[in-house]
Amino acid sequence: MTGQSGIRGFGDFRWEAVEHRRYKKDGSAPFRDISRQVLFEEPALGCELRYFEMAPGGYSTLERHQHMHGVMVFRGHGHCLLGTEVRAVKPFDLVTIPAWTWHQFRATNGEAFGFLCLVNRDRDRPQLPTEAEMLALRGIAAVAAFLDGNVG
Amino acid sequence: MTGQSGIRGFGDFRWEAVEHRRYKKDGSAPFRDISRQVLFEEPALGCELRYFEMAPGGYSTLERHQHMHGVMVFRGHGHCLLGTEVRAVKPFDLVTIPAWTWHQFRATNGEAFGFLCLVNRDRDRPQLPTEAEMLALRGIAAVAAFLDGNVG
Repeated sequence: MTGQSGIRGFGDFRWEAVEHRRYKKDGSAPFRDISRQVLFEEPALGCELRYFEMAPGGYSTLERHQHMHGVMVFRGHGHCLLGTEVRAVKPFDLVTIPAWTWHQFRATNGEAFGFLCLVNRDRDRPQLPTEAEMLALRGIAAVAAFLDGNVG
Repeated sequence: MTGQSGIRGFGDFRWEAVEHRRYKKDGSAPFRDISRQVLFEEPALGCELRYFEMAPGGYSTLERHQHMHGVMVFRGHGHCLLGTEVRAVKPFDLVTIPAWTWHQFRATNGEAFGFLCLVNRDRDRPQLPTEAEMLALRGIAAVAAFLDGNVG
């Protein structure tokens, strides 16, 4: 919040008075080169709006959960896994991720890739795939290529 | 929704499978040349995300209510009234509109002006200003100029 006016300016994919959290892990980590900014989290809204951005080659956690996501792509081109389907997405496309649907976003285009993610403020913890679930996902050629970073 | 994948493409400030509602009124109407597209309204999200866009010179309704708004400017430059303050805003700036705060958006820059508006799905009906409240607002020179479309 910048003063009583409640306006937070945007510039270079950051917002005034919004904390920028950067996560960087390698190897077996479930995500890579991703940052998070929470844009709205007031309880009165009933939901939270977060902005996630990946560096080129980065990806979000492959997960699923009971709560749904409403996503708007915001920066760059990339791909997402939605259930067992891999789709190319571009700025301002909307992605609806239903309950219990595996999902992951990847910066597959050699550029930063970011999206806005809307979520209920009351939500369950994400589940990661078991080894058996990962094998089943990798049994689908397009999904295996996506998980190995071979799309784009 | 376009198929099971849940991706709705964006182009020219419209989204696939999203109804575009255009309102056009003149004279004493509380709004002018504004359209609405509802991007997410699933009950499981707890909130709704709408996109409002005004033609040049258009404006949203001047109103207040108990529920708050989380706004992200999305297209063009414009001005907003927030309480008794008039502020210039540009794409992707965030505007927090607290409970019971008078607010209005205006396309003051000779171009289309649009914003995303986040709102709790359970909310009260907006109040319009009474004649006395309007006079009080007009008692502030910057607000009077804004209401007369003389900013930008």
